[in-house]
Amino acid sequence: MSNVTLSHVTTVITTHGRHQQEEQVAIETPYTVALNDEPIGASMVLPIGLAEFGVGFLFGQGYIRKPEEVREVIVCPEGRIAVYADVVSTQPKEVIITSGCGGTGKIPREMLEGAFDPLQECTFTIDELRAFITRVQQISTLGRETHCVHGCGLWADGGVRVYYEDVGRHNAVDKVLGAILLGKAPVRGAIYTTGRLTSDMVLKCARMGIPIVLSRTATSSLGLAIARQAGMTLGAYARADRLNVFNAPERIIG
Amino acid sequence: MSNVTLSHVTTVITTHGRHQQEEQVAIETPYTVALNDEPIGASMVLPIGLAEFGVGFLFGQGYIRKPEEVREVIVCPEGRIAVYADVVSTQPKEVIITSGCGGTGKIPREMLEGAFDPLQECTFTIDELRAFITRVQQISTLGRETHCVHGCGLWADGGVRVYYEDVGRHNAVDKVLGAILLGKAPVRGAIYTTGRLTSDMVLKCARMGIPIVLSRTATSSLGLAIARQAGMTLGAYARADRLNVFNAPERIIG
Repeated sequence: MSNVTLSHVTTVITTHGRHQQEEQVAIETPYTVALNDEPIGASMVLPIGLAEFGVGFLFGQGYIRKPEEVREVIVCPEGRIAVYADVVSTQPKEVIITSGCGGTGKIPREMLEGAFDPLQECTFTIDELRAFITRVQQISTLGRETHCVHGCGLWADGGVRVYYEDVGRHNAVDKVLGAILLGKAPVRGAIYTTGRLTSDMVLKCARMGIPIVLSRTATSSLGLAIARQAGMTLGAYARADRLNVFNAPERIIG
Repeated sequence: MSNVTLSHVTTVITTHGRHQQEEQVAIETPYTVALNDEPIGASMVLPIGLAEFGVGFLFGQGYIRKPEEVREVIVCPEGRIAVYADVVSTQPKEVIITSGCGGTGKIPREMLEGAFDPLQECTFTIDELRAFITRVQQISTLGRETHCVHGCGLWADGGVRVYYEDVGRHNAVDKVLGAILLGKAPVRGAIYTTGRLTSDMVLKCARMGIPIVLSRTATSSLGLAIARQAGMTLGAYARADRLNVFNAPERIIG
């Protein structure tokens, strides 16, 4: 029992009969993110790393762009993350535009135009990435316990700088991106996520300038297309003994 | 190569060196859903089962409630699903209200009040559910091929009535719920999903009246809380030889 799990007695039905068993369930709870006292949106989250989540969420939505914009984050236990930042307005900054298909679909500008700022360049040896993958598998205890959270970590300068878990794969990435904006981790590193690399996941990492993004599982067609446009190294099915690189393998040396 | 996958040559890095390998990648593409020519929202989807997705999406968002409301669905290849329905307005029907935490967080009314219509009652033998789980594992070929889609199926009257896949676990469930609203599947059945049963997943199944919902993986605290409020049978870690029932095991007999 912790502040992010609860115990629940379940009925296990097997081919040999029924028995009771205690399970750990991940806590999912709604939090609203406000920017300069203006409510921006809400998400169901695992209630840990909430300051990072609030800032990363606002980055993902295009409200905050740079670390120097963030002034203060106050996490209220009643379900509100109040971010204060030096931004001109609480309107998203040109990130979200109406899609071309005549609807209200909000497609980020970069996805249509393929114009990204250059990524923060760096290379890693395959041995370093192996150490990264091995390490994040060790520290994702909540994932093993509840099977209901995704993990996301950032490796730089020879070690795992941050690692977060959440009930949503997008939220876990938002927490890492928020940590970068809060000065807790560098951009020049490699990200590993247990979640699938669909378009939104890859896009926010590319917008942040992350050069290498790895997943325990797969990428989608749009995730791959964005990685190619941005020049990002995208690796899938990452294991300690195997990595399947879908784009830009040249950043992995040795 | 199909209309829902593409081939991509990757660089596989193992402890024995590097080699090239062809991979299948799931197609992820944006679609806007319109109701009576009013654009409602957009989502990244696997472009298959789109009529079902459009109707299920509008159900999940609270715009459509009953099969008899749906008049016509036109799927335009340029990325628009046009649903025509006999609804009074294109405003969500009391499903979405502002959360109590002072934000714009949209928390469905049922989640706060715990008031659900009675579920469509039925029971299944454990042998039937085993047959269901075995069968959906057999037919989820795209999941095995791309590792980037979730599947969702509905079992009733001794067989799998519908089975859909999508890049999003919510979308796959929306397709099944849309199929119900389009008269392709009954409500009185059991749903199986490969995705985690977080609050939104359980909530829309409860609102539809589905009595039994099973997942290959876990549930969250709010998913479980909603299942308990609705009286839904919720099973996790579903395998052919094992089912872990978190709520209302009495609907599973034998």
